[in-house]
Amino acid sequence: MALILTFLGKGGVGRTTIAIAAAKRFAIQGKRVLLALQEPGPALDVLLGEVSGVDPQELSSNLFAVQLQAASLLERSWEEVKKLEAQYLRTPFFKEVFGQELGVLPGMDNALVLNALREYDASGKYDVIVYDGAGDQATLRLFGMPEILSWYTRRFRKVFADSDLGRTLSPFLQPIASAVLNVSWTDDLFNQPAAQQATNILEQGKQALADPKRVAAYLVTTDDPAAIATATYLWGAAQQVGLTVGGVLLNRSHESGAVAPAFAPLTVTPIPTQAIDDWQPLMDVLPDFEQASQAPRPIAINVAERKVSLFLPGFDKKQVKLTQSGPEITIEAGDQRRNILLPPELSGKPVAGAKFQDSFLIISF
Amino acid sequence: MALILTFLGKGGVGRTTIAIAAAKRFAIQGKRVLLALQEPGPALDVLLGEVSGVDPQELSSNLFAVQLQAASLLERSWEEVKKLEAQYLRTPFFKEVFGQELGVLPGMDNALVLNALREYDASGKYDVIVYDGAGDQATLRLFGMPEILSWYTRRFRKVFADSDLGRTLSPFLQPIASAVLNVSWTDDLFNQPAAQQATNILEQGKQALADPKRVAAYLVTTDDPAAIATATYLWGAAQQVGLTVGGVLLNRSHESGAVAPAFAPLTVTPIPTQAIDDWQPLMDVLPDFEQASQAPRPIAINVAERKVSLFLPGFDKKQVKLTQSGPEITIEAGDQRRNILLPPELSGKPVAGAKFQDSFLIISF
Repeated sequence: MALILTFLGKGGVGRTTIAIAAAKRFAIQGKRVLLALQEPGPALDVLLGEVSGVDPQELSSNLFAVQLQAASLLERSWEEVKKLEAQYLRTPFFKEVFGQELGVLPGMDNALVLNALREYDASGKYDVIVYDGAGDQATLRLFGMPEILSWYTRRFRKVFADSDLGRTLSPFLQPIASAVLNVSWTDDLFNQPAAQQATNILEQGKQALADPKRVAAYLVTTDDPAAIATATYLWGAAQQVGLTVGGVLLNRSHESGAVAPAFAPLTVTPIPTQAIDDWQPLMDVLPDFEQASQAPRPIAINVAERKVSLFLPGFDKKQVKLTQSGPEITIEAGDQRRNILLPPELSGKPVAGAKFQDSFLIISF
Repeated sequence: MALILTFLGKGGVGRTTIAIAAAKRFAIQGKRVLLALQEPGPALDVLLGEVSGVDPQELSSNLFAVQLQAASLLERSWEEVKKLEAQYLRTPFFKEVFGQELGVLPGMDNALVLNALREYDASGKYDVIVYDGAGDQATLRLFGMPEILSWYTRRFRKVFADSDLGRTLSPFLQPIASAVLNVSWTDDLFNQPAAQQATNILEQGKQALADPKRVAAYLVTTDDPAAIATATYLWGAAQQVGLTVGGVLLNRSHESGAVAPAFAPLTVTPIPTQAIDDWQPLMDVLPDFEQASQAPRPIAINVAERKVSLFLPGFDKKQVKLTQSGPEITIEAGDQRRNILLPPELSGKPVAGAKFQDSFLIISF
């Protein structure tokens, strides 16, 4: 299992440059690194030289790079699905639809990229995967997918169970889900509800996301007030999808003193401006990315004390709203929201109190 | 009907500042302007002052601004759907699911934002809508939705017709589609296939997108090679979703000579760096955004000459692949692809030839 590392921040603050330097440093330290670059592509070639092809390429010792192109990922999965479909269905639905025809719908790109990361992780070939995505709300929606999809599954299961819909949908959804998730579609699986396997994948995704040794984000900002505002916003938004933020990189700056209080208790590492053709000084000033384990977790549930703590940096009590329905509580903070499925010990218990303390919302049952 | 204007380019090149200046100038010219800002929010407040609330606020004479928050848009549509559902179904599916619980899935945000733009356009309240989105592939997927969704509908219609699926799905998909599209869900509509109304909306969206007097994008770049590479890539990618790019703004520069050849035949307007607290000089140097009508169209079909011309800037012949299947042709250019439904006169005719000339792919039948 790899550490999946990503960077969040306003466009133009230098996320991609820092992602490349981080990948290079891990490789020099002897870790097997995959640098996974999101489309659009050519801006990266300027920094890294040509990165093309659908499969990871070795750039230097231990350092691999891949450009994640949604259209190619979809096409590849689709051809696989058609082969399997032809094997199991007498009148295949999709045989006349060709992979290269498929347009990428919004949302599909996130699912495909997340799944590609999942597969690279599962391959056992890499110790670290540095994912250079859009670095904004889109990256958070990508990492939030397992949590949110599993909420939808949970919440609408009864709707499905009460109708003929679930049963009718199943043979149709299976190939689609297989295409996106690239699930191996065996005879066994065919006899087993597709929902079950999808649920397992979602659960594994949620577990990975909850462990900062497996998935962590770092904020990148400059001294610019707009960049700081965006980083602060993304910090709060990351908590709502359950993504641990391990620290802050203050790019193009010698000194973090003025900015540090805004991001306490995270460490703010100043990154002085570097010459573009020499990566060594930049690698030297990067922080230890394993410190994410020390950062506050988005959520901590203490069954013995009957407490749930949520880390909500950048919000005050007035901006936070709490609602309870059955086994779940919903937290709204600004325009972000999160549904929390309580463990059996707390499920259905009424909320006894809630207080806001040092950016933590502490809910007692 | 409004002109919907958006800006594409690498993060940090100044897209948002230019979008605000463009909106301010239109308002001074007497046009009723809506500046529609995508989340995440706070970076914008630094430039514009607080913009909050779900409804457009008047900032100054003729100038309105709204922050498009997917979570709020979803919640609002959902409550509407539930009301209508309760009216028409004896056993409503969704009454126990509350709007504020709904998480925004990837893709849903694009659909909600596009639909909000559609409604602001249809309201007749605005002459110009300036949409400040992510400005990258995500914005293009948003504007590409009508085209790509209608392709999926077209291509999979037979799959639906051949199965019980379509019929079974209809009562379930209707409320979901209504929630996203905020379609008025009348009794009549309930008796009419939901697909028909959705198709109409998609067709209207495609028509609007095909008309640069209604929807146009401008590229924003700086002298930075990575920013130029991204702008060039986005220019090509915009053609594939059918979005006309009207021109280029070369930000933080006095002189466009060095950059201009890369974007011919578009006009490159240099935008010298401005003081942040004075908008007038910036407004003065912006180009006339109505020039988009003179820019090359992504696609032109000439039935009399039996020719289809596709504008594919940034690609050479070797990067372009053409395939034909029945009434459609598929163009692949780099990692972008587009399906073109041929008009009846050309449908099914074999391709007689294809040549690449001045960034146009000209296909003869």
